Amino acid sequence: MNIRTIDWKSNKVRIIDQTKLPLKLVYIDINRLEDLWQAIKIMQVRGAPALGAAAGLGMYLGIKDYVCSDWDKFNRKLTSVAKYLASSRPTARNLFWGIERILAVAAANKTKPITQIKQIILADAKSIMREDALSCRKIGYYGSKLFRKNDKVLTICNAGILATIDYGTALGVIYSAQAQGKKLEAFCCETRPLLQGARLSAWELHKQGVDVTLIADNTAAKLMQEGKVDVVITGADRIAANGDTANKIGSFNLAVLARYHKVPFYVAAPKSTFDLKIKDGSGIKIEMRKDKEVASLLFKREITPKNARVLNPAFDIIPHQLINGIITERGIIRMPYIRNIRRMLRKE
Amino acid sequence: MNIRTIDWKSNKVRIIDQTKLPLKLVYIDINRLEDLWQAIKIMQVRGAPALGAAAGLGMYLGIKDYVCSDWDKFNRKLTSVAKYLASSRPTARNLFWGIERILAVAAANKTKPITQIKQIILADAKSIMREDALSCRKIGYYGSKLFRKNDKVLTICNAGILATIDYGTALGVIYSAQAQGKKLEAFCCETRPLLQGARLSAWELHKQGVDVTLIADNTAAKLMQEGKVDVVITGADRIAANGDTANKIGSFNLAVLARYHKVPFYVAAPKSTFDLKIKDGSGIKIEMRKDKEVASLLFKREITPKNARVLNPAFDIIPHQLINGIITERGIIRMPYIRNIRRMLRKE
Repeated sequence: MNIRTIDWKSNKVRIIDQTKLPLKLVYIDINRLEDLWQAIKIMQVRGAPALGAAAGLGMYLGIKDYVCSDWDKFNRKLTSVAKYLASSRPTARNLFWGIERILAVAAANKTKPITQIKQIILADAKSIMREDALSCRKIGYYGSKLFRKNDKVLTICNAGILATIDYGTALGVIYSAQAQGKKLEAFCCETRPLLQGARLSAWELHKQGVDVTLIADNTAAKLMQEGKVDVVITGADRIAANGDTANKIGSFNLAVLARYHKVPFYVAAPKSTFDLKIKDGSGIKIEMRKDKEVASLLFKREITPKNARVLNPAFDIIPHQLINGIITERGIIRMPYIRNIRRMLRKE
Repeated sequence: MNIRTIDWKSNKVRIIDQTKLPLKLVYIDINRLEDLWQAIKIMQVRGAPALGAAAGLGMYLGIKDYVCSDWDKFNRKLTSVAKYLASSRPTARNLFWGIERILAVAAANKTKPITQIKQIILADAKSIMREDALSCRKIGYYGSKLFRKNDKVLTICNAGILATIDYGTALGVIYSAQAQGKKLEAFCCETRPLLQGARLSAWELHKQGVDVTLIADNTAAKLMQEGKVDVVITGADRIAANGDTANKIGSFNLAVLARYHKVPFYVAAPKSTFDLKIKDGSGIKIEMRKDKEVASLLFKREITPKNARVLNPAFDIIPHQLINGIITERGIIRMPYIRNIRRMLRKE
């Protein structure tokens, strides 16, 4: 299976509408910044690295039809597009990283004609996608070394093809290990409330020929207790300077359960997910999402009394002490994280 | 709100159809053993103590129209009814306890006329219900002492009115504390796959005037991390001689998370849930339920590829080391459990 989660096609952003999976594989073409904002908000496109690409393409969508010849005016427009895009979802670092990168590349070329700056922005947005595809393969390569043949691996949410351009971070590691002949057995937490594990990871792992079993999130501890988990691996939405990692709600649960059962817990993420300006997890803003995600089943049947109060954070923070290593495109970062994250990100 | 989960009315077993909650409060009357078996299987009636009552009434349903005058023949019928009822669900001890109790009371009266033995069986089945109502209030009384005013309590599944006759074990403790003026704040794990927390506990806690918030099961660790949980309390389906406790899948997760966060974890259950013939948790049979419970949302919309493999155990085992105390109708049992469980169950 060769699919691209997000792409630039016929002068539009083409994404897979992930809310329709696994029932239907539907692509949608997006021409307006506002529609991309909405697609990010309702998670038709999601996953931190894919949001980095969406940010790049979104910046271009926001200015491609803006006519002006003056850099200051253009830059004001660019800044307002950036601010708007950044308001779609708060937690994934890659979204902001993508926006900042485009702002920087534009500023570095501010003496050029606006039409040319626009083309430079588009080219850089495309570079983000190319780099992501490459990074994921490198993450896969480094991460695959952690596995022995026939290892059993547990994951949550979707850090796969559908969270990146075309390969995945946590699931990319599994694909890479499989490609080397280390046949793995994968378990997916279904990942309530929006069920990315059941809908997306089970779907793509199966399509890629990985032996995969779906579990309710509640079954994770029992699975570990029975010795059915050799490694836990997740993606990341934002990693602080000390290694504290924000990821899909439930990831922290898994990290605690893994530690209790002496199962190694790994995070897989590209450089663009790190946020060295944030000292530790307490500084990471956690998105609170609509009650209805929990109070109903995929926005259809209500499952709790109408007046029930709901608490629905989209992410939690995994304390770095519970993380055995962070797999990046430059290798695996181990403790002590404060020092080793800086070292790894600095080296060229 | 004054409701009864299971009752004997107009010569029939009257239960609340819990699969319809919280959308509708519907009672159904059951006249045939086979229909009760089915109601237990598909969890129209569920909850370990309620299953103890269902067992008693089910035994009567199974023999009430059986005409014979010979004890041996009657006893063979009774034994086959027992075997059939016992095949409905394997994990909750109370179901078997109820069946065994009826078999014993019948045997103790075997010299009496069959018509009279039938009446003795019915009377004993009614006793089970009366005793449960009383036990739950005592559990509530002992358990309530564990709470301070304004404590925040987290629970999973439903160990409330709807799991017993009319009061609850884990939720009974909350009701009792509230009645003493210790206003509590409750959090319910939604409890995938069948969502007893969202559908049943959020419903009855709200009806009883308890301040309740629903969370996805994945949010438990974050909630504890934020200091929003003072106590975790769950029911139990079967407790082994050493205190290892089978309860709804996800309970073990909570116990590990609670220990990591230094939050006390309590189990609330009547004597009828203990199974001293089983040495430890490894001897407890865990019910495996249909894939469809996880692979779809309440048997409606499919949420994973059709060919996805699913693992769906209904329960997990909480190792006794993670349990701070077991609240029974005779008081709270503390470590060392092997000794203290025997002592508590023995005393009259």
